[in-house]
Amino acid sequence: MWQEIFTAIDQAYEEMVEIRRYLHQYPEVSFKEEKTAKYIADTYEQLGIPYQAHVGGNGIIARLEGDKPGKTVALRADFDALPIQEENDVPYKSKNDGAMHACGHDGHTATLLSLAKVLVDYQHDLPGTIVFLHQHAEEYAPGGAKPIIETGALEDVDAVFGTHLWATTPLGTIETAKGPFMAGADRFEILIKGKGGHGAQPHLTKDALVIGSQLVTSLQQIVSRRLDPLETAVVTVAQFESGTAFNVIADTAKLTGTVRTFDADIQDTIIEEMEKIIKASCLPYDADYQFDYYKGYPPVINHADEADLILKHAHEADETLTARETAPSMAGEDFAYYLEEKPGAFYFTGAKIEGHAYPHHHPKFDIDERALPLAAKTLLQAYRSYQEKHAY
Amino acid sequence: MWQEIFTAIDQAYEEMVEIRRYLHQYPEVSFKEEKTAKYIADTYEQLGIPYQAHVGGNGIIARLEGDKPGKTVALRADFDALPIQEENDVPYKSKNDGAMHACGHDGHTATLLSLAKVLVDYQHDLPGTIVFLHQHAEEYAPGGAKPIIETGALEDVDAVFGTHLWATTPLGTIETAKGPFMAGADRFEILIKGKGGHGAQPHLTKDALVIGSQLVTSLQQIVSRRLDPLETAVVTVAQFESGTAFNVIADTAKLTGTVRTFDADIQDTIIEEMEKIIKASCLPYDADYQFDYYKGYPPVINHADEADLILKHAHEADETLTARETAPSMAGEDFAYYLEEKPGAFYFTGAKIEGHAYPHHHPKFDIDERALPLAAKTLLQAYRSYQEKHAY
Amino acid sequence: MWQEIFTAIDQAYEEMVEIRRYLHQYPEVSFKEEKTAKYIADTYEQLGIPYQAHVGGNGIIARLEGDKPGKTVALRADFDALPIQEENDVPYKSKNDGAMHACGHDGHTATLLSLAKVLVDYQHDLPGTIVFLHQHAEEYAPGGAKPIIETGALEDVDAVFGTHLWATTPLGTIETAKGPFMAGADRFEILIKGKGGHGAQPHLTKDALVIGSQLVTSLQQIVSRRLDPLETAVVTVAQFESGTAFNVIADTAKLTGTVRTFDADIQDTIIEEMEKIIKASCLPYDADYQFDYYKGYPPVINHADEADLILKHAHEADETLTARETAPSMAGEDFAYYLEEKPGAFYFTGAKIEGHAYPHHHPKFDIDERALPLAAKTLLQAYRSYQEKHAY
Amino acid sequence: MWQEIFTAIDQAYEEMVEIRRYLHQYPEVSFKEEKTAKYIADTYEQLGIPYQAHVGGNGIIARLEGDKPGKTVALRADFDALPIQEENDVPYKSKNDGAMHACGHDGHTATLLSLAKVLVDYQHDLPGTIVFLHQHAEEYAPGGAKPIIETGALEDVDAVFGTHLWATTPLGTIETAKGPFMAGADRFEILIKGKGGHGAQPHLTKDALVIGSQLVTSLQQIVSRRLDPLETAVVTVAQFESGTAFNVIADTAKLTGTVRTFDADIQDTIIEEMEKIIKASCLPYDADYQFDYYKGYPPVINHADEADLILKHAHEADETLTARETAPSMAGEDFAYYLEEKPGAFYFTGAKIEGHAYPHHHPKFDIDERALPLAAKTLLQAYRSYQEKHAY
Repeated sequence: MWQEIFTAIDQAYEEMVEIRRYLHQYPEVSFKEEKTAKYIADTYEQLGIPYQAHVGGNGIIARLEGDKPGKTVALRADFDALPIQEENDVPYKSKNDGAMHACGHDGHTATLLSLAKVLVDYQHDLPGTIVFLHQHAEEYAPGGAKPIIETGALEDVDAVFGTHLWATTPLGTIETAKGPFMAGADRFEILIKGKGGHGAQPHLTKDALVIGSQLVTSLQQIVSRRLDPLETAVVTVAQFESGTAFNVIADTAKLTGTVRTFDADIQDTIIEEMEKIIKASCLPYDADYQFDYYKGYPPVINHADEADLILKHAHEADETLTARETAPSMAGEDFAYYLEEKPGAFYFTGAKIEGHAYPHHHPKFDIDERALPLAAKTLLQAYRSYQEKHAY
Repeated sequence: MWQEIFTAIDQAYEEMVEIRRYLHQYPEVSFKEEKTAKYIADTYEQLGIPYQAHVGGNGIIARLEGDKPGKTVALRADFDALPIQEENDVPYKSKNDGAMHACGHDGHTATLLSLAKVLVDYQHDLPGTIVFLHQHAEEYAPGGAKPIIETGALEDVDAVFGTHLWATTPLGTIETAKGPFMAGADRFEILIKGKGGHGAQPHLTKDALVIGSQLVTSLQQIVSRRLDPLETAVVTVAQFESGTAFNVIADTAKLTGTVRTFDADIQDTIIEEMEKIIKASCLPYDADYQFDYYKGYPPVINHADEADLILKHAHEADETLTARETAPSMAGEDFAYYLEEKPGAFYFTGAKIEGHAYPHHHPKFDIDERALPLAAKTLLQAYRSYQEKHAY
Repeated sequence: MWQEIFTAIDQAYEEMVEIRRYLHQYPEVSFKEEKTAKYIADTYEQLGIPYQAHVGGNGIIARLEGDKPGKTVALRADFDALPIQEENDVPYKSKNDGAMHACGHDGHTATLLSLAKVLVDYQHDLPGTIVFLHQHAEEYAPGGAKPIIETGALEDVDAVFGTHLWATTPLGTIETAKGPFMAGADRFEILIKGKGGHGAQPHLTKDALVIGSQLVTSLQQIVSRRLDPLETAVVTVAQFESGTAFNVIADTAKLTGTVRTFDADIQDTIIEEMEKIIKASCLPYDADYQFDYYKGYPPVINHADEADLILKHAHEADETLTARETAPSMAGEDFAYYLEEKPGAFYFTGAKIEGHAYPHHHPKFDIDERALPLAAKTLLQAYRSYQEKHAY
Repeated sequence: MWQEIFTAIDQAYEEMVEIRRYLHQYPEVSFKEEKTAKYIADTYEQLGIPYQAHVGGNGIIARLEGDKPGKTVALRADFDALPIQEENDVPYKSKNDGAMHACGHDGHTATLLSLAKVLVDYQHDLPGTIVFLHQHAEEYAPGGAKPIIETGALEDVDAVFGTHLWATTPLGTIETAKGPFMAGADRFEILIKGKGGHGAQPHLTKDALVIGSQLVTSLQQIVSRRLDPLETAVVTVAQFESGTAFNVIADTAKLTGTVRTFDADIQDTIIEEMEKIIKASCLPYDADYQFDYYKGYPPVINHADEADLILKHAHEADETLTARETAPSMAGEDFAYYLEEKPGAFYFTGAKIEGHAYPHHHPKFDIDERALPLAAKTLLQAYRSYQEKHAY
């Protein structure tokens, strides 16, 4: 049967591309993806697969119950787009001004919908239940995964799998990790509240710009001195704004940045060390500060057994040239929340267009659509191998 | 005679205030002060004192030749305003939107015009020549003094004096210095040209924000380590701009600031040290930079003998409570150019309104108008004592 | 047979402890370990096992050729001590003033000698050849491993295994890693050559102390900004010496430190970045510098298959409670050189004395001697499992 | 009479040189100058001028009361030497091992003794009283001036004058200032108390060396940002000691240095700012510190009227080529204490040997002895002009 399904997926290729291109032309940004949600719901309606719409926002959950006994396995695809103006010159270019599928979520959705279309014919022979989990708002914290989980809709799910079409990984390559796979990504804002004055009289001021500069320099010591060298973390100040005139010392300096970690303890240590360094930077000037730290998505920590299933069974699809463990990515994903609740694994499906080197979130981002069937097949394999491993 | 003139100045007080308030209501910013120039020219026209308009721009130079032999002494008043929206609630509030006499130049002009009106009656008894030097564009480098000098209009002048109504010096106080009195004020712009990238991948970037921060910290060593401790200098970075998003490392950082000195060698040393520190900050990152240094007005270096005349004769006006040497001001003035060409001195005439503590260039700046007659009398004394000192 | 050998090892426990305590009382520092070498050679002499002395210095290599066909497997124990004055109050305390076995090499040697004593009786049944590799001078770079290899004495060896008794790992625990296991450890010296002078006249000097301080601060950016966050590295300045009087600015500052890495490219990047940062720190002062970088032992990179043998077969010894992969240690070992030449693995045998928390190289360092038989058994298992895996 | 005295001083030249060379051969370091004190006392004994020995230590005060009415004027010469091994090859080279008159105090003493010898003959005609103030221990804080003052021996003195033979000022030049003339010189010690550890595990330590380095960098902001740019100050860290091994992070870092100021408020501000910066540097590491600040001699602040007397009357000695106001020196002097109690002035008498450029405190320091008579004459003039100015 499984080989038959693989063939059916291959035959669905043109429709898969068609769906993807349609979605690409009508992108909707996070939390506003209503028409896309309706498009997805309509598909399940037509397929006769029971579904629930408006789950935790614009989420849609469809369930295909096989006639054979087995586990309940969720396969997730996200469907929101980014507030970017597309710069590709392609027939399926975005028709929604200022919005673009610049991260491949159109492909994820096309993959999962096509898989549903194929599988509906095999319902009698399928073990357990497949949950088609279409998630909104992955791109913008606090994201869609969390509210979906909070509805309880996934409580009976035994395992959850998902893939990301990855524009820097070659076609035919499946990558994952047995443990930390994508980083936790946080945001912070630091406002140094000094005291302004004339540029020629620094001694009458509390020079926020100088405090901020020293702060940026001191923050480097967190990674170099305060964390276990074996741990991975990034502390980046990405914005520095201070001053309005060349001869007026400014009242304030505003620093904004991001922290990336794979471990909650390290995250806590960084927050604590940042607070101490900020406090120390202000102290000699008796300056005040405001430190706001916004925890973003937690790190994506794959469950080792489930990641192992991905790697072991990936080669059963002919398109798979390589299935490998990879170093974790510093990027973030709210798939992390599912893995905090349930066993599962997230993985990358290589979708690199040779010679077209634009990264995710770039106005010229694009994917090699030939990656879609492999994404579908590896999701299927995840479902299948999980069933087989946990069969009675 | 001189006592008589003092009395005439006292009697001119109301007109002096009237002129000042008129000018205050119709401020014109640097290089645009055409109506003000015409107002001044008209006054000399009516007085029958020969004058030259459009000197080096909007400058006006009038000459009252006394019948007695003597030297040619220039008395200078500047008349441009600032691009500031007035916030005072006074009957004579600025009627020109976005422009304000927030530095007292209206008072300078009223003082000099009133003095001319008084002196015209004493022409037969006056020694030498009084040059009424009405200068435009003091507030905005390269200023009006330089082009006026370049016309050659002051070539026959023997000495030049000028005063600034000073809002932080008490009424009745005359302040000057025998040597450095106001600082040279320069502007600089530094553009760090790094290489941007993802906030989670600092190693693939040349982090301009970090380079800029280290640069600000290192620049502190110029004053603390690289200059003779007995010299006076300020190096202030007043603006720091880098980055547009919390998770994107920026390509560039832009730093803008000011340098204040009293000595051309120190100024040159600072420029040289800045260049070396900027270069060194970029070096570890193989980053590039652009360093633009704009020399502003040179320091106001009073001639000792002429400053001495100010201090010695100030008390001949009854209003003078104190005439003192003072520490130099870090502020700048293009009166400096006159003193590079001719003997002379610049001094402050106290014009502080008790309980109204707004500094120069503030939207609520104002002066105590009772300072105007004293300003007129001390200018007169400068002219008179210079004549007496250099009499045959 | 193997179970019999395990029993024989258990029966040798008292002698093993006796040997260890004897060696502990007569420690000899690196490159001076002549009596220890003689003690070892004498043992093999008595056992009738052929050996070679003075291999690459004080090294001794004995070879026990089994009558069964098989591979040649080297088991390594190092035997040098440290220049430390022992502070333990034990009956077997060091009798050599200023020298101490503060790293457990006495235990390593006792283990390997005891194993030889046991195995000599099983020569007829043993497969392949066991090479007893007693290495001198592990504690002091350039170490003994390199010259031993350079003699060619290990050319016919198929694999090499070794263990370190580890005082912070619990008794009964075997730890290793399939890949990077211990760091490469380098040393550097930086001499800043400034220009001294009077403490009150910094501008006439090139202040080496200030340059050095800024350098230490800037070096933090290598780990925090210049290396891939996923890589592991440490750059530590551990010594800073500058100045001889409180009011005299010194000519020079000397900084000494260590770099730890697991990857030659990262090591090269660090050296390159250090050079650039040192150069940049000197540039604003036109100061000179000397930068000496001494590459120490390379990282210990275990071969995955051989490390796997350690983990898989460790439990065959009853004493093994846990056999696990562990995060790499930042400490260094010249076992690294063997692994650059031959397949093999290095691992820790837990020897922690509960409640006695002194680390390696501490004057109160000690080990739980009950770890010795397990060390012997796991070395045996390494030899045995390697033979079995590669049997014809 | 005064011209006669000048002639007598000229005639005493050879004896003056003889005394100076004798003293030069038998230097005694601060607080140990007993034989020198006896030599001085013996001179007054022989002259029959009443004197007091052991004043506040080894000080000697002699008083020559003139028969004419007048003021009591003290003339001070210090007589201690330095712990330096002389490297000059001269007939009068130091015979006391490890001690040297490397600061000219031998010349000061010879000058004052010779002046006493000359003046004793004019007692009947001299106005007021001359106090010959021979002070011990100028070179080593807390110095001899303070205990001498505390004995009350100078209570009836009206004014005090003193000169320093100055090896970088040309012969024939007299230099002083009407106000700040020499700096206050303080010493500080900072001990950073961190927590040591392995060089490869910075996160388990509180890295005192890194804290100290950041501290040195931050201290630069005191002069550059926290003090009025018009004020003069130096903060120099001259010693940095941390660490004993290249791979061991040290527990502590010790920083020692000097602060120079001309104003007690500025001194207090610096101490306060240092404390804050030290505290801030330790804060992020939860490290402790000890900050010891030793106030040295206060600044030498000349009284303007008395300094004026020096400048106005210096030219009455034929040797005086130039008498000028000079920028203050950053060096220190405990003459400062006298000026806190009494009117007076301190000045430099040029004693530069052309082509011999060794500074004060150098093993090859020497003076041009032809400066001695001028030093004597200007001290005499100070006494004389003070009397004349304050005559009834």
